Amino acid sequence: MSHLINNLPLVIQDAAAVESLAGAIKDDMGMLWMLLSGILVFFMQAGFTLVESGMTRSKNAVNIAMKNLLDIAVGSLTYWFVGYSLMYGDTTNGWFFWSGIMQGEGADLFFQTMFAATAATIVSGAIAGRTKYSTYIIFSIVMTAIIYPIAGGWQWQGSGWLTELGFIDFAGSSIVHAVGGFAALVAAYMVGPRIGKYIDGKVMPIPGHNQILATLGVFILWLGWFGFNGGSQLAWGGDDSVAASTVVLITNLSAAAGALGALITTWIWYGKPNLAQSLNGALAGLVSITAGCGNMTAGGAVLAGLIGGIIVVFSIEIIEKKLKIDDAIGAASVHGVVGFWGTIVIGLWGVDGDAGLGIFNGGGSAQLVAQLTGGLAYAVWAVVLSFVVFGVLKYTVGLRVTEEEEVAGLDISEHGSIAYPGKRERGQD
Amino acid sequence: MSHLINNLPLVIQDAAAVESLAGAIKDDMGMLWMLLSGILVFFMQAGFTLVESGMTRSKNAVNIAMKNLLDIAVGSLTYWFVGYSLMYGDTTNGWFFWSGIMQGEGADLFFQTMFAATAATIVSGAIAGRTKYSTYIIFSIVMTAIIYPIAGGWQWQGSGWLTELGFIDFAGSSIVHAVGGFAALVAAYMVGPRIGKYIDGKVMPIPGHNQILATLGVFILWLGWFGFNGGSQLAWGGDDSVAASTVVLITNLSAAAGALGALITTWIWYGKPNLAQSLNGALAGLVSITAGCGNMTAGGAVLAGLIGGIIVVFSIEIIEKKLKIDDAIGAASVHGVVGFWGTIVIGLWGVDGDAGLGIFNGGGSAQLVAQLTGGLAYAVWAVVLSFVVFGVLKYTVGLRVTEEEEVAGLDISEHGSIAYPGKRERGQD
Amino acid sequence: MSHLINNLPLVIQDAAAVESLAGAIKDDMGMLWMLLSGILVFFMQAGFTLVESGMTRSKNAVNIAMKNLLDIAVGSLTYWFVGYSLMYGDTTNGWFFWSGIMQGEGADLFFQTMFAATAATIVSGAIAGRTKYSTYIIFSIVMTAIIYPIAGGWQWQGSGWLTELGFIDFAGSSIVHAVGGFAALVAAYMVGPRIGKYIDGKVMPIPGHNQILATLGVFILWLGWFGFNGGSQLAWGGDDSVAASTVVLITNLSAAAGALGALITTWIWYGKPNLAQSLNGALAGLVSITAGCGNMTAGGAVLAGLIGGIIVVFSIEIIEKKLKIDDAIGAASVHGVVGFWGTIVIGLWGVDGDAGLGIFNGGGSAQLVAQLTGGLAYAVWAVVLSFVVFGVLKYTVGLRVTEEEEVAGLDISEHGSIAYPGKRERGQD
Repeated sequence: MSHLINNLPLVIQDAAAVESLAGAIKDDMGMLWMLLSGILVFFMQAGFTLVESGMTRSKNAVNIAMKNLLDIAVGSLTYWFVGYSLMYGDTTNGWFFWSGIMQGEGADLFFQTMFAATAATIVSGAIAGRTKYSTYIIFSIVMTAIIYPIAGGWQWQGSGWLTELGFIDFAGSSIVHAVGGFAALVAAYMVGPRIGKYIDGKVMPIPGHNQILATLGVFILWLGWFGFNGGSQLAWGGDDSVAASTVVLITNLSAAAGALGALITTWIWYGKPNLAQSLNGALAGLVSITAGCGNMTAGGAVLAGLIGGIIVVFSIEIIEKKLKIDDAIGAASVHGVVGFWGTIVIGLWGVDGDAGLGIFNGGGSAQLVAQLTGGLAYAVWAVVLSFVVFGVLKYTVGLRVTEEEEVAGLDISEHGSIAYPGKRERGQD
Repeated sequence: MSHLINNLPLVIQDAAAVESLAGAIKDDMGMLWMLLSGILVFFMQAGFTLVESGMTRSKNAVNIAMKNLLDIAVGSLTYWFVGYSLMYGDTTNGWFFWSGIMQGEGADLFFQTMFAATAATIVSGAIAGRTKYSTYIIFSIVMTAIIYPIAGGWQWQGSGWLTELGFIDFAGSSIVHAVGGFAALVAAYMVGPRIGKYIDGKVMPIPGHNQILATLGVFILWLGWFGFNGGSQLAWGGDDSVAASTVVLITNLSAAAGALGALITTWIWYGKPNLAQSLNGALAGLVSITAGCGNMTAGGAVLAGLIGGIIVVFSIEIIEKKLKIDDAIGAASVHGVVGFWGTIVIGLWGVDGDAGLGIFNGGGSAQLVAQLTGGLAYAVWAVVLSFVVFGVLKYTVGLRVTEEEEVAGLDISEHGSIAYPGKRERGQD
Repeated sequence: MSHLINNLPLVIQDAAAVESLAGAIKDDMGMLWMLLSGILVFFMQAGFTLVESGMTRSKNAVNIAMKNLLDIAVGSLTYWFVGYSLMYGDTTNGWFFWSGIMQGEGADLFFQTMFAATAATIVSGAIAGRTKYSTYIIFSIVMTAIIYPIAGGWQWQGSGWLTELGFIDFAGSSIVHAVGGFAALVAAYMVGPRIGKYIDGKVMPIPGHNQILATLGVFILWLGWFGFNGGSQLAWGGDDSVAASTVVLITNLSAAAGALGALITTWIWYGKPNLAQSLNGALAGLVSITAGCGNMTAGGAVLAGLIGGIIVVFSIEIIEKKLKIDDAIGAASVHGVVGFWGTIVIGLWGVDGDAGLGIFNGGGSAQLVAQLTGGLAYAVWAVVLSFVVFGVLKYTVGLRVTEEEEVAGLDISEHGSIAYPGKRERGQD
């Protein structure tokens, strides 16, 4: 990347030099877009904190906040120190990423860091309410330093095996969300259900404590997703401006359709339109288009999101009631199952982002095979690695707090404070 | 819009080609600014959710969240599918907007979509606590597909009758806010007051349940308004950069003055500076400058906002106590009455955004007549159309829930869940 | 600043003109980056509101919101009217800033305004729960109109005495944060502790009422800080793009390290990892790198933030328990003490932002002397001016509310409403 603007007097001499200027400006605009997108993706950490704490009990809210704070703190350091090099592997500059910073890749490293932190944080909600904090720390480190970067490199490094295969995952339905979501599924299975979730074979509801915070969280995630998907264009200027704008547009359309898909599904199925599921539907709409947002028509995006919003409602029910896995906030469904859906839908009615008037836009059996291969590869990777990591943790530091600690709430037992100190605690107010 | 950057080697041959390059870069920067502005405006949906739920009772908070989620979901789809074409009417490409997306208008459509969703969502707060959800859905669809787009086209389509008249409404004091606000007034009148609001001719206060969430909501709206007003420059580069920056600057000054105007007014009138009204004052300051932010001096903006902040306090009192219309959060005053004020103030001391040292900056009777004409046209349009729509709804699906449902709260009766499930609901925690 | 894009046909004639084009585009991009950064910094007001209200009692939450709303309202007006001229002193255009706006400095004034508002708002949390609102208003005016602008001019005006000395404070560890933080310390000392904080020589904990809001507030501050530090590059394009991106990257790394530093410190010291202190640690990490974010390696930033996160825990303990000054949210430690740390660390292992592979990056005794001189100058300025202002206020309007008002809570006594009206207040719900 050459930045010629500062040296213009020397170089502007002919058409070739003007061309260089145009390239330098395009680089500058691309860097601005990526940096701003990374800032938006950072904010998703706040969104996850609110969704996860709002959808779980107040006695575990401090623990949720501590896990999300940890994810961005640990993820920023490990991905900078190890993960980025492992994923994008510029071997000419050695293993440490250091040299990259000095070559003007700050915006790119910042942007990619936020993706790693997102992959980790997806897991935190699923295992809320019973997991040891120290255990979670170790998992978060392994996720951002190893599990996510290696998997990401298969596709985004540029010459990985999935890239060669023709696999498409524009912004990470599989690479980020399904990896995080399937890891969440395994984690929830390994840790086991919360006390009181399954009593005598019956499934007991454990409602969250603040649906307004959860709603705010979903709006923040939706906002951040514009950077998540739009920034994945990795450039701005000319065709890239149009493409990134279209990515943002159809990301919004898919989210809208996902929210409506879940809203209508719950209205029909439960008899009333349900907020928590509609919020999950909006997120499902976003996950549904994350892989294909560079390769779908707007109509195709709406249909993908709509179906994603329907899938997520049933997936949550099946995991909770049939598989009897206690995923406290539905993370495995929203990010894992729907992430897989978002990956394969490209093979059904997406591929050529430029094509015209309709929903179907390419796809076909060869692409579908590539999408299935990649989607399955990421699912298997996440499941196997998570089994290994949580398995090792189970027989070493342990996964769960004690029963007494769980009943008291992780806020008191793991962190020594509560989220909402009130009159009783202060004897006044 | 031609994007030449990608084809530079072929075209850079002479001065004319360099000029084309400059134009292409300006297009790229403008698209970036509009896309980012649209993202900021999107976030206003979260702000509305918090303001509306924070300023009403907790038993209706889920319903508020469901309405705001619906507005962005339904608005995104209907405006994309119908509204944008109706408003900007590019007949050469046929009625459906589809072709527009393929021509690189993603950023513009995205930006405009967020305005439509905003117009709809203004209504949701006014009729909180007693309106059927199914009825609201139909209104939201009509608002984003028909009422707002047709009205918007009068001015923003570029050759509408108000444009010809010399009417000025830079970012939508009338087109978005007054249309939404007067629709809210009609809606609140048609639906009728909440049970317990007027007892034996006395006006009873029904305080909101969370003023901190309301405060956060206002800060988010203020933030989003920088995109709402600044993005309405619709371009970046050269004079447009300066103009859009000035728009953001004076938008902030007017908001600041509006907050102080209401704060001081309540201090004098109530005896203490009041938070809820100061928050409304900040919003009133924003609405006051939304029409004139491209045509006012900074001093003029401060004065416009200050007066807007005073107006809103009295308008809320008059609508609540004299007209006896139960607007649950003061939306008709903030967006309707003050939107009208923001429209006509341009005829009093705004017009030429470039002029110098002072408050008065043009205006005059011809402009005032144009502003009054436009302002009244939008008010009448919103009132008449809302009467028709809510009138039809009243005698078909019905407007209100039953008395039992209202007393129980819409969260339980319409959505089957509550915002803050606590101990009682879970038998533990 | 010349904006040639609009006049291209006239000027593009030779290499010099193309060079002018490149400069104009760089100006445009720089203005965009500064405007967006200012918008991010604005949002920090919401972050401060949440952190301060979440970390204090619910009976004073409305008062916190009213103070933060006031800071941005008053600060925007006074800094526009007086402060900016005092700070950047363009005497050729007279004292009033007016002319500046007309020269295309809207983005810069907007950006700088947000810094002034930040300096003021730091004080509001420290003196929560007992300070008269009218008194706070006067302080806020003096802070944004006089105390901060004069101090800022020493360095950022471009030819101030600290600039001449070689002092470095890229984004304001001292100029904004330490000035605000030491003013907060003096304010807390002058106002005196809250009733019940020190009983018979014992220090009583007064926990905040909502740690989730505090967490959201910290995420919002962290987000806004990317604009605070990154925007302080004051330009975009070429080397500036790379530099600003690197600023954002290492700002994030330092925040991450600060959060971990405090988390680990509390784990060792308290026995459990503590949320409130970890949140303070993240803020401390941000303050630690605010001065040096243009002059540190990434490794140096991590170390600076880590130490900042450790310092803040001990500083809060010392101020609370040894000095017996009741800083309700630790603002003096986070912004004052750590602001000083962030200032001097540049003399220890920062200076040349371009240097290579490691932590140490220049520094040295001459730079350390400059940093100590500047850091002490800002601390002394803030302490002395705050003593004078609060001293005058103490013997005129008075600093504290009455004991009855304090026990009742400032929300009721100063503002006539409460943050969370519930059943008792409404007799229903």
